[in-house]
Amino acid sequence: MENIFVGIDLGGTNIKVGCFDAELNLLKKTSVATQGDMGPEAVIDRIIQAVGEVLSTAGKSLDDVAAAGIGTPGPARYCDGIIIQCANMPKLKDFDIRGILSERLGKPVILENDANAACFGEHATGSGKGVDNMVFFTLGTGIGGGIISNGKLLKSSGDNEAELGHIIIQADGRKCNCGQKGCVEAYASAGSTARRAAEVVQAGEDSSLKQLEEITCKDVFEHAAAGDKLAERIVDETAKALAVVCVNMLHAIEPERFVFAGGMIAAGDALLGRIKRHFAEYIWDIKNEDAVEICFATLGEDAGIIGAAALAKNMLSG
Amino acid sequence: MENIFVGIDLGGTNIKVGCFDAELNLLKKTSVATQGDMGPEAVIDRIIQAVGEVLSTAGKSLDDVAAAGIGTPGPARYCDGIIIQCANMPKLKDFDIRGILSERLGKPVILENDANAACFGEHATGSGKGVDNMVFFTLGTGIGGGIISNGKLLKSSGDNEAELGHIIIQADGRKCNCGQKGCVEAYASAGSTARRAAEVVQAGEDSSLKQLEEITCKDVFEHAAAGDKLAERIVDETAKALAVVCVNMLHAIEPERFVFAGGMIAAGDALLGRIKRHFAEYIWDIKNEDAVEICFATLGEDAGIIGAAALAKNMLSG
Repeated sequence: MENIFVGIDLGGTNIKVGCFDAELNLLKKTSVATQGDMGPEAVIDRIIQAVGEVLSTAGKSLDDVAAAGIGTPGPARYCDGIIIQCANMPKLKDFDIRGILSERLGKPVILENDANAACFGEHATGSGKGVDNMVFFTLGTGIGGGIISNGKLLKSSGDNEAELGHIIIQADGRKCNCGQKGCVEAYASAGSTARRAAEVVQAGEDSSLKQLEEITCKDVFEHAAAGDKLAERIVDETAKALAVVCVNMLHAIEPERFVFAGGMIAAGDALLGRIKRHFAEYIWDIKNEDAVEICFATLGEDAGIIGAAALAKNMLSG
Repeated sequence: MENIFVGIDLGGTNIKVGCFDAELNLLKKTSVATQGDMGPEAVIDRIIQAVGEVLSTAGKSLDDVAAAGIGTPGPARYCDGIIIQCANMPKLKDFDIRGILSERLGKPVILENDANAACFGEHATGSGKGVDNMVFFTLGTGIGGGIISNGKLLKSSGDNEAELGHIIIQADGRKCNCGQKGCVEAYASAGSTARRAAEVVQAGEDSSLKQLEEITCKDVFEHAAAGDKLAERIVDETAKALAVVCVNMLHAIEPERFVFAGGMIAAGDALLGRIKRHFAEYIWDIKNEDAVEICFATLGEDAGIIGAAALAKNMLSG
């Protein structure tokens, strides 16, 4: 019976693959090195091999699979199933990954942006469960996003919806890698948080961060936790920028819940508490918004494969 | 045959009513004073009377009506058909306008936010025709908004989606009436444009606006057109703020088209050209966005009744 869904999360370093039952319970998962430099055919071979592996260790075979979903970084023409170019996998250029995977597996395949897939995963079985409208942010080197509107992944016709890291919170502000100025990503990504700290330290301000050769975002949070004033201020500014983008997305689509994911959420309440406080401070007062929830993702690194499998299931049901 | 749709636009000053055929062609329209201070029953009576009038002058009767739509300012529980409070009609408080109108007309009625209704109208038969994803702004005393996503009005579960005037473009910037700081409305509404000009004039900067007792937004645009440098700068800053909110909404939902409506668009290319130039300047450069259209609304004051009728038609078709 074809009631198994496969979720694939194709990243620059690793390919994660999981197989799920019809209720999206994870049966088995694995992770293999992407080795994108060996070219697209080798990547496909490794995916197929990993799919075979999770199925057989789960006591299943391809005959049991209903459909597969795959999440990848952009830019891509997701609706057409084609990767345009992947920053970390330059050989996957104008690559019909959906077509080839679908042929090799003999199953329908859906391609989606990796942040959208993780968003859909959190909505299906994680911290986004139970709400119809949700805004999702991934805090990493950059800031990615996803939007759930009326229970569905919000999609545009151009495949670049929910690029929430590039919402401007300070017109003519800090330069962002994208060419804009004042994007939330230029303040609050892990990379920008580390860079802002390094700039202030270099400018000569006193801080326990001074002793480090290179400052990472993790360092900033650790030194803030240990009471370093400069590090505390940098963390607070990161939280403030994230609160402002929540205000903006509340006024755009009015979600019931905001969910933050990515390595930075390891900081716990030092980050979450600050985002909530700044949100309460920055939000309008003509209407009470106390009911809006701000929380952290709960699926961790599995969000991508769960979301990809959920999208595959969703594709078949409607 | 029940193939006529009634559109009602209930404002603080006037009630506009139109009747439309099944292709949303306007058959007849009228406008009567709201007289909200006479209380909710009197307002309902005037609406019913106006509906009767447009129907009879169009050679139709209530028997021909399939459904009616009504747009009102908020806050309201639109899904429940209830006006919570109208700033300009204080006596319409916790008022079940949909229920009462539906009973009086004997027809299904849909209640929607006035900016959303105008947005839906422009999308149905105006400058939003032919695109599936669109962001709409009304530039008046404040700034209202509406979003079309995949051909439908984007709705949240809280009835306050698309409050686009309160998207923050400058964290900790100008104070807005809503209690936030740095909202686009605090820079670019007609009211804010006039206020920003008055502030600079009061601060002593030279300008032909100095001779006026009170500066309106229209004055600012007229003096800018006549070559006044200060007025030109104020107009340019208004356009810049609107361009930044377009950048933000592009990254949120990626519409194919932005549509601006409201009294301020009478300024024509002096405003539109500037918004387009600033958008091109502020938008990221990692992807070409030349295909994104920015234009003015074309339905004028009829957008509200057309949108309300279109929503009524839409309600019946599912």
